[in-house]
Amino acid sequence: MELTPQQKQEIEEARAAKSETRRATVPALEEILYEPIPVLDHGFVRAIDYMGDDAAIVQAARVSYGKGTKKVSDDAGLINYLLRHRHTTPFEMCEIKYHIKVPIFIARQWIRHRTANVNEYSARYSVLDREFYIPDASQLAMQSTQNHQGRGELLEGEEAQRVLDILKEDATRNYDHYVEMLNEDQNGDVIDEDRSGLARELARMNLTLNAYTQWYWKIDLHNLLHFLSLRADAHAQYEIRVYADAMLETVKRWVPIAHKAFMQYRVGGVGLSAAALDIVKKMLAGEPVSQEDSGMSKREWRELMATLEQDG
Amino acid sequence: MELTPQQKQEIEEARAAKSETRRATVPALEEILYEPIPVLDHGFVRAIDYMGDDAAIVQAARVSYGKGTKKVSDDAGLINYLLRHRHTTPFEMCEIKYHIKVPIFIARQWIRHRTANVNEYSARYSVLDREFYIPDASQLAMQSTQNHQGRGELLEGEEAQRVLDILKEDATRNYDHYVEMLNEDQNGDVIDEDRSGLARELARMNLTLNAYTQWYWKIDLHNLLHFLSLRADAHAQYEIRVYADAMLETVKRWVPIAHKAFMQYRVGGVGLSAAALDIVKKMLAGEPVSQEDSGMSKREWRELMATLEQDG
Amino acid sequence: MELTPQQKQEIEEARAAKSETRRATVPALEEILYEPIPVLDHGFVRAIDYMGDDAAIVQAARVSYGKGTKKVSDDAGLINYLLRHRHTTPFEMCEIKYHIKVPIFIARQWIRHRTANVNEYSARYSVLDREFYIPDASQLAMQSTQNHQGRGELLEGEEAQRVLDILKEDATRNYDHYVEMLNEDQNGDVIDEDRSGLARELARMNLTLNAYTQWYWKIDLHNLLHFLSLRADAHAQYEIRVYADAMLETVKRWVPIAHKAFMQYRVGGVGLSAAALDIVKKMLAGEPVSQEDSGMSKREWRELMATLEQDG
Amino acid sequence: MELTPQQKQEIEEARAAKSETRRATVPALEEILYEPIPVLDHGFVRAIDYMGDDAAIVQAARVSYGKGTKKVSDDAGLINYLLRHRHTTPFEMCEIKYHIKVPIFIARQWIRHRTANVNEYSARYSVLDREFYIPDASQLAMQSTQNHQGRGELLEGEEAQRVLDILKEDATRNYDHYVEMLNEDQNGDVIDEDRSGLARELARMNLTLNAYTQWYWKIDLHNLLHFLSLRADAHAQYEIRVYADAMLETVKRWVPIAHKAFMQYRVGGVGLSAAALDIVKKMLAGEPVSQEDSGMSKREWRELMATLEQDG
Repeated sequence: MELTPQQKQEIEEARAAKSETRRATVPALEEILYEPIPVLDHGFVRAIDYMGDDAAIVQAARVSYGKGTKKVSDDAGLINYLLRHRHTTPFEMCEIKYHIKVPIFIARQWIRHRTANVNEYSARYSVLDREFYIPDASQLAMQSTQNHQGRGELLEGEEAQRVLDILKEDATRNYDHYVEMLNEDQNGDVIDEDRSGLARELARMNLTLNAYTQWYWKIDLHNLLHFLSLRADAHAQYEIRVYADAMLETVKRWVPIAHKAFMQYRVGGVGLSAAALDIVKKMLAGEPVSQEDSGMSKREWRELMATLEQDG
Repeated sequence: MELTPQQKQEIEEARAAKSETRRATVPALEEILYEPIPVLDHGFVRAIDYMGDDAAIVQAARVSYGKGTKKVSDDAGLINYLLRHRHTTPFEMCEIKYHIKVPIFIARQWIRHRTANVNEYSARYSVLDREFYIPDASQLAMQSTQNHQGRGELLEGEEAQRVLDILKEDATRNYDHYVEMLNEDQNGDVIDEDRSGLARELARMNLTLNAYTQWYWKIDLHNLLHFLSLRADAHAQYEIRVYADAMLETVKRWVPIAHKAFMQYRVGGVGLSAAALDIVKKMLAGEPVSQEDSGMSKREWRELMATLEQDG
Repeated sequence: MELTPQQKQEIEEARAAKSETRRATVPALEEILYEPIPVLDHGFVRAIDYMGDDAAIVQAARVSYGKGTKKVSDDAGLINYLLRHRHTTPFEMCEIKYHIKVPIFIARQWIRHRTANVNEYSARYSVLDREFYIPDASQLAMQSTQNHQGRGELLEGEEAQRVLDILKEDATRNYDHYVEMLNEDQNGDVIDEDRSGLARELARMNLTLNAYTQWYWKIDLHNLLHFLSLRADAHAQYEIRVYADAMLETVKRWVPIAHKAFMQYRVGGVGLSAAALDIVKKMLAGEPVSQEDSGMSKREWRELMATLEQDG
Repeated sequence: MELTPQQKQEIEEARAAKSETRRATVPALEEILYEPIPVLDHGFVRAIDYMGDDAAIVQAARVSYGKGTKKVSDDAGLINYLLRHRHTTPFEMCEIKYHIKVPIFIARQWIRHRTANVNEYSARYSVLDREFYIPDASQLAMQSTQNHQGRGELLEGEEAQRVLDILKEDATRNYDHYVEMLNEDQNGDVIDEDRSGLARELARMNLTLNAYTQWYWKIDLHNLLHFLSLRADAHAQYEIRVYADAMLETVKRWVPIAHKAFMQYRVGGVGLSAAALDIVKKMLAGEPVSQEDSGMSKREWRELMATLEQDG
């Protein structure tokens, strides 16, 4: 990721300007506010505003439960309790805003989470940057044979090289043709006075799905944690997981207690079905269990044994 | 509205604590942050946190439209343009959080706006305060004869007094019975050691709808303006309109440019149907118009003539 | 619950009218369509419209996953998979609409689920019915000493009788005063020509929270299951749980496969935190475990041991 | 748009299957249920399920307003009233589900409306079809010089031909490379046994933004009308407007009264700001008006004069 001198200056200016506020303030997040965290080859995540902190969660819970919260001795205990019992509304009282640069095919996955506010750079109005995502060789995996949406072993040698060549050449050519059709460079200057140029809202269709877009993305903490539980997960596509990982770091700075509870109860936790719980109880009681008697499918049984680290 | 000494102290402490922040900060709103604005006899509105300012709206629009926004000379022009053309997403980039105390029958209207985050004081967990809304004599109106949801002339004399007596006595008696059934005062102390006390989640059903509840209510600026356009309107019930008016004052402090545009394009604006626009054009052309020829219902015609300040 | 002769006739007429449709149709749900299922003393749940069936969930999943779903042999297997892995969007493709009559204090809990569409009977426009919820003696419980939001033992004898007397008398008196202030009976006829009557939007504040309201409530299957997982749960207040139970029956008729999966993976399932999973693995390996070494709070430890049916 | 024989057969089977239902049924919509309405060169819109009709809107309003709706003489009058006064909740009681095939760059605009439920074909799981949108020569417009997001005059001659050549060649080449990298045809058969093939979730990034995707899209009538008011508008991009137009036709069949009201109060209607209303009143009173004295920007003034069909 390379920022233009102008972007660098804007970020520096934003970081230099400090004001006094009566609002809840989180120094650890302030420290990195506005700074881009690099992701992939040209992308980034920047936390650019926030509202609330761990104490705001507690405060909201105490409004709800009133004196009913007295028994819980401290903030961490209360936040753990809320997350464990899926009392989600107090987490909605915190809000964060990011500026994100991301390849379009990942943006399309991302936007399926409908609980955020979004302002995306529009290629109807303006010309997109000449930047596209080319995977690192360490990410060029073949289709998984076990998982319809996963990756298997790495591609190697000639086949890997051929893929990289295709991705680079096609994205570059298509971008160059996009500019040719527009007859306009990124500064809005006409390229060839003898041509008219195609409307931007049409020319953009020639771009490839690895072109980068950018947006402002604002979300409350409850919905952000839900997004992260799905997208920082091992089953998520690598290219969105790295964004989720970068955002998790900002969450850790912002609301460290909620972050810890989230790692404990969501990321590291598992769900057991009624049948799975029954199996566990039988195993603890020393009774014999088997897939055949469990009512589970083979796949489900395998998943359970893997979770329990049993040979199955 | 009377605050307890403890509440006053908490507010003072919150207001006294100041930090340094890199976030956008609005001094005019900071000035009243945490301070309760009295509404009705025991209610209040307190702005307790916010994110963003007028510039954040502009910034979000510029992300979307990129160089396409260059032509708009200034922030006010751009914000006017956005509101006029219902480009609403940039307004979603600002967020505000209120602490509100409001009678339950108004809270029930309010909660129908589903776009806010809410944490409400729960009478399942805790005992409600001994406070209920009794209308001022100047608000004791009879049912409107023209409007199925409106108020007409004021009640007077004996009938007005009888209403006030009923409201006070019934609310008071029901609250006292609530406490008696709970067998617990607001401090959680048992009243009569020989009785068990009814569960709070049941006892609360004896309260009247003018009992006060309170909540934290957090919403983005776009949805707040939509709420205010409905609830600060002349057709809204007085008891919610006074809350909307108090919140409008906080919006004016917070985002003065957006507030001005809102007053111009929403609050002071009107919508014309295709038929109404046709009538206006004919009138401007000096052609004769009449309800019969307009295709409008009598009611609609009356509304249009009132809007245009014509005799109809 | 008693229906008026007019209501009975309307329901019979709606049930008698049959049309031919190309849409997915579910005979088991059609069988009870429009029929009120009684809940509490005057409440009911009526399924009055629906869209989609179990096959619609499968169909939506197959659009998403295309040939990727081929491997899953049957509909039940696919629906189980979707629910187990929280792939929730296919469940959003089914929709149901209910007509519900419910006491106001329960309606206030209910409406906190913001994902449904609602049209509620408005006491601004019309006069409410003279009906209020009076708990059965078998539900008159004291406050739980262990659980801030729960019920403990039953009240008995004189104290129980006193509670019932208060609830009945206060609700009745307040309703009678409501009608007196309105100076209007439920047919809209004036009671006393010499009085003006208070506006309906004001008079309603004298009602008690156990008065019944009613609404149309429309929701998609995913959000309905989420609602039911919280409200059909043992921790939910009895007065809302009985509504959830009635709705669960309609879900069983409507989408039996999804219903079965829901009972297996949500209602009967449990969540284990990272620490809890660790404990289970140790126990399965025959290693010693203790609350002190687990990093769990005492409460959390007790909950885990209860889940695993261990002495703890 | 060409359907495969298998698709044709599925549609015919779905259309042939008829059941008896007690639900509200709309014969005019049933007539075209499941049938694809062609849009653009390979796209379509298919209404595949619905819930409710005009009467359901009226019924929901009557639940809300109770006896307060008695005065409104008929359904059309009530629906007009609801739409005119933006009482939107009764329109939420109707729901419709579409199957849509649309180019990705248009799908990206579309998905910004977050109020619908969506299941989209996933290129992580399955291979996309070899279909891309190539504009008709009559749509190849240059960038508007007045409107940053609009189209101006048509491109002609050589430049138009060059654009068409680029779009076709780039989309085709990129698709062929996509298949080569996958090393898998659309039936899932391996192309070259000596290569491994790139994971689908990666290979898709080489596709162009005019490739077609498809989804199930389910929405309530209120939100659908909002979508259509923006996307069937003259300012919307042609390529999404044609979808909105096709959907408007289905709305006309489904809820003809609501459709008529929508055309009257939304599509054909205009909004006037406070200042604009003031100008209109002055003009009606024969007083002189001018942009300079109006407080409006030149652009706003021009828009108003165009609306009023005045020379300005």
